[in-house]
Amino acid sequence: MKKEHLSSKEEIRRDPLSHRWVIVAPDRAQRPQETGQDQGADGSYPDCPFCEGHEQATPSEIWARRAAGSRPDGPGWTVRVVPNRYPALTSSGQVHRSQSGLFKKIQGAGAHEVVIESPHHHESLADADLLQIQYVLEAYRDRIRSLYQDAGLRYVQVFKNHKLPAGASLQHPHSQLIATPMLPQNIELKLKAALRHFERTHTCLMCEILGQERASQQRIIREHRGFISFAPFASRFPFEVTIAPLRHTWDFIEMPDEKLEILAFLLKDVLLRLKLAAADPPYNYFLSTAPNLRAMRSKPKQEDSLKAALHWHLEILPRQTAVAGFEWGSGFYINSRTPEEAARILRETQGLS
Amino acid sequence: MKKEHLSSKEEIRRDPLSHRWVIVAPDRAQRPQETGQDQGADGSYPDCPFCEGHEQATPSEIWARRAAGSRPDGPGWTVRVVPNRYPALTSSGQVHRSQSGLFKKIQGAGAHEVVIESPHHHESLADADLLQIQYVLEAYRDRIRSLYQDAGLRYVQVFKNHKLPAGASLQHPHSQLIATPMLPQNIELKLKAALRHFERTHTCLMCEILGQERASQQRIIREHRGFISFAPFASRFPFEVTIAPLRHTWDFIEMPDEKLEILAFLLKDVLLRLKLAAADPPYNYFLSTAPNLRAMRSKPKQEDSLKAALHWHLEILPRQTAVAGFEWGSGFYINSRTPEEAARILRETQGLS
Repeated sequence: MKKEHLSSKEEIRRDPLSHRWVIVAPDRAQRPQETGQDQGADGSYPDCPFCEGHEQATPSEIWARRAAGSRPDGPGWTVRVVPNRYPALTSSGQVHRSQSGLFKKIQGAGAHEVVIESPHHHESLADADLLQIQYVLEAYRDRIRSLYQDAGLRYVQVFKNHKLPAGASLQHPHSQLIATPMLPQNIELKLKAALRHFERTHTCLMCEILGQERASQQRIIREHRGFISFAPFASRFPFEVTIAPLRHTWDFIEMPDEKLEILAFLLKDVLLRLKLAAADPPYNYFLSTAPNLRAMRSKPKQEDSLKAALHWHLEILPRQTAVAGFEWGSGFYINSRTPEEAARILRETQGLS
Repeated sequence: MKKEHLSSKEEIRRDPLSHRWVIVAPDRAQRPQETGQDQGADGSYPDCPFCEGHEQATPSEIWARRAAGSRPDGPGWTVRVVPNRYPALTSSGQVHRSQSGLFKKIQGAGAHEVVIESPHHHESLADADLLQIQYVLEAYRDRIRSLYQDAGLRYVQVFKNHKLPAGASLQHPHSQLIATPMLPQNIELKLKAALRHFERTHTCLMCEILGQERASQQRIIREHRGFISFAPFASRFPFEVTIAPLRHTWDFIEMPDEKLEILAFLLKDVLLRLKLAAADPPYNYFLSTAPNLRAMRSKPKQEDSLKAALHWHLEILPRQTAVAGFEWGSGFYINSRTPEEAARILRETQGLS
């Protein structure tokens, strides 16, 4: 079966009752589960497609930080971005929107990329060099920027799954980007809440939250050169952490290298504390950032409101508790640890000095 | 530590960025995980609080279907409802709402009950008698009705977690009800979508969906005496199933015993098919039904719209695939099996005759 044929089967459907979006990608079922983890006699992982020296096991790289003189799709890299071999979405060049009665679907637009965070199989992000973490963040920024050139893509969701219980099917440290031709429902909900707040108060919601957090200090883990990590007031999970820039910045792609260097420090600091305080938990993290204005077709005034109302942030969700019927049905969460206690424990844990 | 003291610690918090609600219940962390599963020499489960004969291990029963002459909190029951010993929420009689800047919280209102579905440790709902399943459904109906007498409770979420990967901490078959003093976010989203559709078309959204499903037949699993089971158009998970009454009924508590007898048949039919076709998967199910009008303080005209726009339904989500960072961040889902194929497989599987 040829790749082009595979891609054409994916479609994005909207649930008429809840307005949530679902990617129906039947060929994703064929992707390997928990492969590439068998160690050879020499200590290497011969079946891992992400280890250095196995570059031919992935599609051609789109982006990389490499040693001078090294060649694309060869060894010598620190961080490497490739298309996902089992993509949830791909672009065919032709977006096809259709509706049959109440049932809406969209085909043909999207992208799914993998950021390989290290050439080494077991070097998790918490243990990586600061420069390497900075490169991972640069990969996110550069790839979002590049995908936003396509006016058919409205949002790029950056996310990471650490360990199997958090949904990682490959052990080798990596994160992912999925670009979609519509605004995801969670991003839309946040955007509406932020715009409503801005219209009422002419201030950014996140800027105000950060002001309240800094005034109370109860839930702050650390501040570092213009960035802050804290346990959000309505944390869904024990040890949930949010990282944000203190200064209003609506779009992650505006972050220059020097800021990403500082962010890398604070991210590593949080991951180290989580590893020590919560026994190296499985976790997901994901970025909430600006939608692609080119695709939004907003009026200039609406754009100005969006830029003033949104404030990018990174959420880290440790996944040690199950999500069950109550959460699925209601959208409520039950958290058995107060964020105030989680923040205190993480503050008292040794971080990065 | 006294129970009253424990309860006072729970609070419901609203996330200012996404408007989701979180129950912070620090004492839930003390609840047992995976207990009551060790079998004694006689084949019984001496530590299971839900087995017949162990009635003293639970708080006093609120509701039961029992043999004539049997006594409350003694043996001789078929289905039994008790307060959850480790409640996520309890009512103190005094609802306390407070707001500090952007941070809203509510304390003192709610309920958390357990429906013990069988006196026998291993009799799962798929294997239970039809009459017993009917009693379980009657328990849901009667308990929602009773909790809706309290004008401080806006919604009762009925849900079931089957097996550990779906969040069941006790093996003995049971389901749960959690009553909350606000409308859960997912219910609010559905309610808004239904009202918007009704205002535009003067028809019920679910009635129209069922009309489309019946016209195409592609995703229908079975129709049975006024009820239907189908794989929803935008299924989040492989083998996801929705059950609904064909005739417009906004509120589950309006279902008379004879209708619940038919519903029990169709529910058992679906659970049997899932068990055979998908290797007895872990699953969650949950009911979407009417909010408590007494608590909503709507005007009569709004009430009429709500009654015309809402249509109760039961969603069954098999939980064989992980929910990862993409889903958490975006609210999107990736389903690797088309609902059309899932429905075909379930249709071709032997159900209840």
